Amino acid sequence: MMVNNTFTYDVLAKEGRARAGVFHTPHGDLLTPVFAPVGTQATVKAVTPAQLKECGTSLVLSNTYHLYLRPGADLVAEFGGVHEFMQWSGPMLTDSGGFQVFSLSDTRKVDEDGVTFKIHIDGSMHRFTPESSIQIQEKLGADIIMAFDECADPNNAAYIHDSMRRTHAWAERCLKAKSRPDQALFGIVQGGVSPELRAQSANFISSLGFPGHAIGGLSVGETKQEMNDTLDVVNGLLPESKPRYLMGVGSPEDLVNGILRGVDIFDCVLPTRLARHSAAFTPTGRINLMNATFAHDHSPIDETCDCYACRNFTRGYIRHLIVAKEILAATLLSIHNIRFLIALVQKSRQLILQNQFSDFAVDFLDKYQPRTKQVKP
Amino acid sequence: MMVNNTFTYDVLAKEGRARAGVFHTPHGDLLTPVFAPVGTQATVKAVTPAQLKECGTSLVLSNTYHLYLRPGADLVAEFGGVHEFMQWSGPMLTDSGGFQVFSLSDTRKVDEDGVTFKIHIDGSMHRFTPESSIQIQEKLGADIIMAFDECADPNNAAYIHDSMRRTHAWAERCLKAKSRPDQALFGIVQGGVSPELRAQSANFISSLGFPGHAIGGLSVGETKQEMNDTLDVVNGLLPESKPRYLMGVGSPEDLVNGILRGVDIFDCVLPTRLARHSAAFTPTGRINLMNATFAHDHSPIDETCDCYACRNFTRGYIRHLIVAKEILAATLLSIHNIRFLIALVQKSRQLILQNQFSDFAVDFLDKYQPRTKQVKP
Repeated sequence: MMVNNTFTYDVLAKEGRARAGVFHTPHGDLLTPVFAPVGTQATVKAVTPAQLKECGTSLVLSNTYHLYLRPGADLVAEFGGVHEFMQWSGPMLTDSGGFQVFSLSDTRKVDEDGVTFKIHIDGSMHRFTPESSIQIQEKLGADIIMAFDECADPNNAAYIHDSMRRTHAWAERCLKAKSRPDQALFGIVQGGVSPELRAQSANFISSLGFPGHAIGGLSVGETKQEMNDTLDVVNGLLPESKPRYLMGVGSPEDLVNGILRGVDIFDCVLPTRLARHSAAFTPTGRINLMNATFAHDHSPIDETCDCYACRNFTRGYIRHLIVAKEILAATLLSIHNIRFLIALVQKSRQLILQNQFSDFAVDFLDKYQPRTKQVKP
Repeated sequence: MMVNNTFTYDVLAKEGRARAGVFHTPHGDLLTPVFAPVGTQATVKAVTPAQLKECGTSLVLSNTYHLYLRPGADLVAEFGGVHEFMQWSGPMLTDSGGFQVFSLSDTRKVDEDGVTFKIHIDGSMHRFTPESSIQIQEKLGADIIMAFDECADPNNAAYIHDSMRRTHAWAERCLKAKSRPDQALFGIVQGGVSPELRAQSANFISSLGFPGHAIGGLSVGETKQEMNDTLDVVNGLLPESKPRYLMGVGSPEDLVNGILRGVDIFDCVLPTRLARHSAAFTPTGRINLMNATFAHDHSPIDETCDCYACRNFTRGYIRHLIVAKEILAATLLSIHNIRFLIALVQKSRQLILQNQFSDFAVDFLDKYQPRTKQVKP
C-alpha cells in the first residue's frame, strides 16, 4: 500500500483564519474545506455511491457504533473494510463510537477505563474502551479514524473538567493502541464552552503529535455565539500545519462560520435527515416541500443549484412525491441537500484561493435565514 | 409535434409465434418484445429516471387511477403531461384505471354507462366512464393509452360474458371519445379463461381498427396453463400487423412464455415490489436476500447480470442494508430486478432475430424455478 506522502496537509492559501488546503490520504486527496455526508450504517441514506460522486462528495463518514452493532466489525473486515463493503472508493472517516455511546445517557456507565452500555437493538450490554474503539476502527479500515472521547453536556460545567481530563488520558491510550500505518488518527479537543478548558485541551491534544485535530462537543446544545467563541479559542491554538475537523456540523451558516474561523473538515447528517423530512436548503434558507404552496411550482428546488434534482425536476413534482410517500422524494432531496453543502464548501475554497471569501461569507450569512437553534435552558 | 410514421408496427422477424419488431411512438421507437416497469404514481418506486435508463428501460407505465386521485390529471397537464412531470423522455403508457377500480370489489358499482367507486384516500365517491377515462388519459398525455374495460374474475363464468359485452361497448365509446392524434389507443381483449369468449373478444376488438391490442384479465388468479391456452387462442386471431400487449405480466417465466406465444409488450410491478420485499431474480429462480445464508456471501446478486447493483455490490452488503432497513436496499434490488427482466426481453429479441429463441426459451424455463402461483380455489 502506498503510504508515502499520506496524511500530510498542505495549506495552499489563507484569508484571515480561513484556509484552502489539501490533505493526502491513501484513497486520494481531500481538497479542504470539505464537507462529508454521513453514511451511518455503511450507506448514506437514500443515495447510491454513484449519486454521491455526482454530488461532488470526496469524503464519507461512517459510524463505528452502528457498524459494530450491525453487521459487526469482523464482517466488515471480512469484506475488505468499509470502503470495499459499501463500494466507496474515496477517502473515508469513522468516528470513535463515543458520541453515540454517551448519548445513551440512561443506559451507560463511564469509568476511568471505558464505558459500559446497553444497546438499542436487543438490550444486551457492551463495553467500549479507547483500545477497543481503535481496534474496531482498524477493522473497519477508514482513512481517518478518531480518538475515543467523552462528549459531555456543555452546560454541566462541574462535569466538563473531569470529562476533559479523561478524554486526554484516552487520547494517549488511543495513540498507543493504534497499529495500522495507513490510517490517520485524529485527536479530539473537548472542554465544553469554557475558554480556559478549551485552551487547555487544544494545547494538550496538539502536543501529542496527531496528524489532524478534531473539535468535539459543539453543536450539542450550546448557543451559536458559544460555538463561534470556542472555535476562535481552539483554532488560535491548534497548529496551522494540521487539518481541523469540526465534528457533527452542520448547517449552511455553521459551515460558513466554521470556515471563517479556520475549520477544514465538517460532517453532518443534516442534509440527508432534512431530506427525509421534506426540507431543502436554498440560498435564502430552508423550505419544506410538503407545503401546499409548492403544488403548482414549476421551478426547481434551487435555481442556482447544478444537482441532478435541480437540473431535472420541479418543486411541484417533488411535492407530489412527498404527498404520495414515494422513496424518490428522499433520494432527490438528499442529492440536492448534499450537493448544496458541497457546492458551498467548494465555492468557499475557490474564494479563499482568490482572497475573496470574507465578502462572500458576509453576503451569504446576510441572505441565508437560519432556523432558530434550539438552545437548552 | 411529429406524428408521421408514429404508431406503425414493423415485424422484423418471426420464430414460431415469437416476434421481434419496432413500434414507432412520438417519444421514440420501442424495440419489441419490451418490458415496461410500472411507475404507479409517476415514479418507478425507489429509482430515478436516470437509473431506469441505465437499466435499458424504454417504456414506462403509469396508472391513471392513482394519478387521477393524486396529484390529479389537471395538475399533471399543467406540468406538460406525465412525461414532463416525472421527466421520462421515452415512450410512456397509461392504463385506463379500470383494473384498479374493479379491484375495489366492495366499494364500486358497475352499470352500463360506467363505474362508481369510493376511493381509499378519503372515502369520497367518484365515477369513471369510457369517456372520462380517455379524457383523463389525454390530460396525462402518454404515448399509448388504454380502452376502459372491465377485468372480471376469470373463475366467475356466469359473469364473464356480460362483462365482456360491456367491455366491447366501452371499447367503441373510447374510440369515439379519443381526440389527440399523438396518442395510440389500444383495445383490450377480455373473456376470462373461456376459449369461445376469448375468440369472440379477439375478433370483435381487432375489427375496430385499434393501432394495438392488449390482452387483459390474465395473471389475475387463473392457472399458468389457462394463461398459456388463452394466449394461444387470442394471438392466433389478433392481426400480425399490430403490437400485442399482455397487461400486468410478469414474472421471468411468464415473459418467456408470453414471447413464445406472440406477445410484444409486457408491464408489471413485480420487479420493484419484490425488491421492496428483499427478493431478487436470478437465472435459477428468486432468492430472498434477507436470508442469513447471504451474510458472508461475497458474490453479486447474479454473476451474469450487468446492472449497477451486480457490477458493484455483494449479496452480503445488500443483506446488511436489508437488515438495517436502509432505503438503498430497495433501490439496488429494484435496479437489478428491472434490469433482469429487460435483459431477458432484449436477449429474447436478439435470439428471435437470429431464429434461436425457442432453444433459449426451453433452456431458460428448464433452469428457472418459478414460485408456485397462488391459484384461487
